[in-house]
Amino acid sequence: MSETVRISIDAMGGDVGPEVVIPGCALALERRPGVSFLLFGDEARINPVLDGHPALAAASTIVHTDVMVRMDDKPSQALRHGRRRSSMWLALEAVGRKEADMAISAGNTGALMAMAKFALRTMANVDRPAIAATWPTLRGESIVLDLGATIGADAWQLVDFAVMGQAMARAVLGIENPTVGLLNIGVEEVKGLEEVRLAGQLLRGSDHPIDYRGFVEGDDIGKGTVDVVVTEGFTGNIALKTAEGTAMQFATYLRAAMNRSWLTKLGGLLARSAFEQMRARLDPRKVNGGVFLGLNGIVVKSHGGTDAEGFANAVDIGIEVVRFHLLDHIAKGLEAFRGSRPQTVDGAKE
Amino acid sequence: MSETVRISIDAMGGDVGPEVVIPGCALALERRPGVSFLLFGDEARINPVLDGHPALAAASTIVHTDVMVRMDDKPSQALRHGRRRSSMWLALEAVGRKEADMAISAGNTGALMAMAKFALRTMANVDRPAIAATWPTLRGESIVLDLGATIGADAWQLVDFAVMGQAMARAVLGIENPTVGLLNIGVEEVKGLEEVRLAGQLLRGSDHPIDYRGFVEGDDIGKGTVDVVVTEGFTGNIALKTAEGTAMQFATYLRAAMNRSWLTKLGGLLARSAFEQMRARLDPRKVNGGVFLGLNGIVVKSHGGTDAEGFANAVDIGIEVVRFHLLDHIAKGLEAFRGSRPQTVDGAKE
Repeated sequence: MSETVRISIDAMGGDVGPEVVIPGCALALERRPGVSFLLFGDEARINPVLDGHPALAAASTIVHTDVMVRMDDKPSQALRHGRRRSSMWLALEAVGRKEADMAISAGNTGALMAMAKFALRTMANVDRPAIAATWPTLRGESIVLDLGATIGADAWQLVDFAVMGQAMARAVLGIENPTVGLLNIGVEEVKGLEEVRLAGQLLRGSDHPIDYRGFVEGDDIGKGTVDVVVTEGFTGNIALKTAEGTAMQFATYLRAAMNRSWLTKLGGLLARSAFEQMRARLDPRKVNGGVFLGLNGIVVKSHGGTDAEGFANAVDIGIEVVRFHLLDHIAKGLEAFRGSRPQTVDGAKE
Repeated sequence: MSETVRISIDAMGGDVGPEVVIPGCALALERRPGVSFLLFGDEARINPVLDGHPALAAASTIVHTDVMVRMDDKPSQALRHGRRRSSMWLALEAVGRKEADMAISAGNTGALMAMAKFALRTMANVDRPAIAATWPTLRGESIVLDLGATIGADAWQLVDFAVMGQAMARAVLGIENPTVGLLNIGVEEVKGLEEVRLAGQLLRGSDHPIDYRGFVEGDDIGKGTVDVVVTEGFTGNIALKTAEGTAMQFATYLRAAMNRSWLTKLGGLLARSAFEQMRARLDPRKVNGGVFLGLNGIVVKSHGGTDAEGFANAVDIGIEVVRFHLLDHIAKGLEAFRGSRPQTVDGAKE
């Protein structure tokens, strides 16, 4: 645990940039010492903010660039030659060159994933990367993946996700033997997608020790039925956003209901600690940080609209994942499936 | 509005059967007179309950059968010959024979859909049926489909769903010109599935007047961004259940938070009317009733675990849909797309 974790930061990412990113890094450093930062971005904007955080300044090296990836840049635009000088690209490249153990950006997800694949390449034995994040549940927290890295997944890709999610749950939730479920629907005769059924068979029949619990449905995510929920990126992204929408809806109803009369307002005042507890529990900042899994390097995507606290949480998750040597765990887990796995034509993916 | 709506009821469906179904029908009849019922099921169980509801008894005919589809029957089992005497099958057959305007069952969804397809057949110009239901939103209610009738959908099937959802919104929500969106994810370069993109182009380019608003994401459902949200059944089912899980999670947190101390409990007592308003707003019974669209007849699926109030709401939705002549509206809407639509090999589907 004593090794220094070197973090490369896209200081220009997100809706705000350095004004959120730098205080976020300062918070994370306070909470978890033994971390150094490479800050990529516009010196003229970084320095004034950094001046207010001397401890962070002492642990940081600024690498100036005035190129940045915009929040509305398409992945293809982000990959154009000019963007190879952007703060996002340079942060990723530092991981590729082993100058940093992980990269963090609050920039646009599509661009970040496209660049990350290019800069870091997909791990051996992995077909496709995934985005994994923690999801608050009635039992605590679960890991859900893929949240939108790619659309669709065949059975072997879902198996990869299961292995990656298992490792992530160990790293982030500290669960030694996490339970794993495949997201499916229970309505049809065939019980869901062919790929999902086949993935279930592969997980059951494997030598890799994985506590596979079968299919779970959408409501099992919030219940915390399993520690790791595996699905492909289209469904995962829609499940995530639908849950966010429902939580917002509930909060709005609650606010409106409590403002109904002087009596409900008084009740709300008396019960204020209860609402504060709820707010803390559902605080989206606490679960900020989508981890890109399956690349030769750790990349964490922070929500673009988060604040310093939220950004710090994304840094925290990254630090945990690096200290856990997540990539080694994933590589070992995938190795166990290698023998049974058919070689694809473009299997090398290099 | 004065024509009698003839409803055939699978009196044995659901977790409870006649003990919920019969009082539910009685409630619906009270609220919307001008309705007659065909009750299919075990006389020995129906009669004692019906005795307590003389008005319903007067409007009902019992057709005895002691065969029933079980909640855990697979669709293939349900389609076996012996089940052709079941209360579920007979209720559907009555619609096929034009002895009833619609059928309602709280029985198992997979079996009901399989039997409904068999008994009623898919409408001309429709490839696949869908399950549509109302979804409470911040703006009121929206229609979401498909919630799990079939897995996957090509572009033309999504167009069918859009037209069917449009008609459903007119019938159930009373919105003359409902806005329609395709559920998608915003992360990828390509902006989601190929089928979804193509469906968007078809909807934009059509002669059929439809207020198509483009792609929506998961959180737009709860926001009520559009009146009709269109997706294929796998994603739709997972979105629905994920939202249910999140709502349950929120309610559980709230309960726990309010029981925290005597102060929060007192606050909760004072604000009781607020919580009652919230509960009413989020009452799942209010939105009970998934309508099977795209078949030559209306079938409503009630939640299996609902109570009389919930079952009555499913009956209500069915009555609205029948009185609106939903099937005619759908047929006309689909006709407008017919010219541009490629003929599939198995296009007839008969």
